[in-house]
Amino acid sequence: MLGKNILGIGVINLERVDIAIIGTGPAGISAAINAKIRHKSFLLFGTEELSPNIGKSEKIGNYPGMLSVTGRELNESFKEHLEEMEISITKERITGIYKMGDYFMLLAGQKGFEATTVIIATGAEMRKPLPGERELLGRGVSYCATCDGNLYKGKKIAVVCDNEEMEEEVSYLADLAETVYYFPLIKTTLEGENIIKMSAKIKNVQGENRVENLQLSDGSVLDIDGIFFLKATVSADILLNGLKIEEGHIAVDRNMRTSVKGCFAAGDCVGRPYQIAKSIGEGNIAAHSAISYLAELKKAAK
Amino acid sequence: MLGKNILGIGVINLERVDIAIIGTGPAGISAAINAKIRHKSFLLFGTEELSPNIGKSEKIGNYPGMLSVTGRELNESFKEHLEEMEISITKERITGIYKMGDYFMLLAGQKGFEATTVIIATGAEMRKPLPGERELLGRGVSYCATCDGNLYKGKKIAVVCDNEEMEEEVSYLADLAETVYYFPLIKTTLEGENIIKMSAKIKNVQGENRVENLQLSDGSVLDIDGIFFLKATVSADILLNGLKIEEGHIAVDRNMRTSVKGCFAAGDCVGRPYQIAKSIGEGNIAAHSAISYLAELKKAAK
Repeated sequence: MLGKNILGIGVINLERVDIAIIGTGPAGISAAINAKIRHKSFLLFGTEELSPNIGKSEKIGNYPGMLSVTGRELNESFKEHLEEMEISITKERITGIYKMGDYFMLLAGQKGFEATTVIIATGAEMRKPLPGERELLGRGVSYCATCDGNLYKGKKIAVVCDNEEMEEEVSYLADLAETVYYFPLIKTTLEGENIIKMSAKIKNVQGENRVENLQLSDGSVLDIDGIFFLKATVSADILLNGLKIEEGHIAVDRNMRTSVKGCFAAGDCVGRPYQIAKSIGEGNIAAHSAISYLAELKKAAK
Repeated sequence: MLGKNILGIGVINLERVDIAIIGTGPAGISAAINAKIRHKSFLLFGTEELSPNIGKSEKIGNYPGMLSVTGRELNESFKEHLEEMEISITKERITGIYKMGDYFMLLAGQKGFEATTVIIATGAEMRKPLPGERELLGRGVSYCATCDGNLYKGKKIAVVCDNEEMEEEVSYLADLAETVYYFPLIKTTLEGENIIKMSAKIKNVQGENRVENLQLSDGSVLDIDGIFFLKATVSADILLNGLKIEEGHIAVDRNMRTSVKGCFAAGDCVGRPYQIAKSIGEGNIAAHSAISYLAELKKAAK
């Protein structure tokens, strides 16, 4: 069912699911498998390729029962497991989660989804925020081309992109903006008339009330109207307001409960060691905790 | 190397290992694989059959990457993994762990082993202690036939056994004692001239200063000199003095650290959900934590 988005931006899927699982790495996959077995309604947000990082691993020796698999083989086994269990992947990048009383609203660009519980399994944050980035978020700093691109029609913007799949959004922004100063964190072949590929690195995002310029590693200062950070996953604390972060990871207890009631987390995003086996285990626990929470809610409603 | 046991009971293996892993279920296996990959010296205590409980599972659907395996197949895959990595199992049942300053002494009947760190992965405690059992431990209650059998030569003893593999110890005790009142918790075909198989259940272990009799479910009272509980694994709090237990499980933090420094725990023994994936993940974390602890010790020693 599609209806009007209560936040006023686009369409919303009003069929509320029990569990929204964000991320298709080992933690998200493990959570989804358990949600399926326990007959919960759920959405698994991620990509067809599941986990790009695992896919690139040459050899994985410590996933018990599967000796010396390559990352690619393990990823393939995960895919087969999902397919056999008829678990489909919702190919949307969640850009914001909002706690709405006893459920959550999830936004993916202009689309909305509702879920009673959320399991965040978005992987490790590989890049630390730049000085000024968090301070100017929403005032010239954006993580979502679809959401904010229109604000920069005919303007000068910088775009940082860490992911090949996201590069089409760089092009999308180039169609709108006058100039795109592109800072790729990946090997890129992207070209465009108004795309200027930058080799210097950004040291600071600067501005009084909103973004004014960037201080670059070559000592120069680049005037801009806004900057987009296009990342495969949005940082957890940006994703959900009020989520407690400890030393760069989502704080969880032994049951994978975060500081936000009904929100659980698992895998690399909750801390080291960054290991497939650990993520698999934590995804399993997170699903069981979400299911227990759902049962409590049901009991309380009676 | 074999030398004299400092506790004065039997022989001791003086080659101190980095990590002693107790239990060959998924948590212990996962810990051992990681210890091996990280080139640590270790001992893995358990049985050839690895985990009897898993081996009996008809179908396991939620171990990602291995779709719809039977418990037997998964156990076989674990065995192959260990064999390929040349990880051998030390077939000893650890009956006591003693903290000796900066290392641990582990006893298996009359044998001793030394390790700098310990990972307890002994599975869930399926049976609650009987009233009187813990109170009279060491005063007529024993968990180790090899250790205490000789104290009951020509005496009347009760034996509770929850495990087929342990039944030979019932026979061993029958060779020593005058009468063995046998309370099997398993299907048994064990017979012996002085073995009396009991169908009633034990309600209480009773005695003033030491065990005097058992109160049975049929209302009768059975006079005995001692009682042996032969279990595949010794309860964690009996195993290691001072280990903090919470609601029947070993208390651990997110890094699988127990209340005893240098001692870690993983798997069903640390709590629900009782899931293979969870145990695999926790065994991985426990091994990484033990390795970090070893590195800290080394650094402090410099």
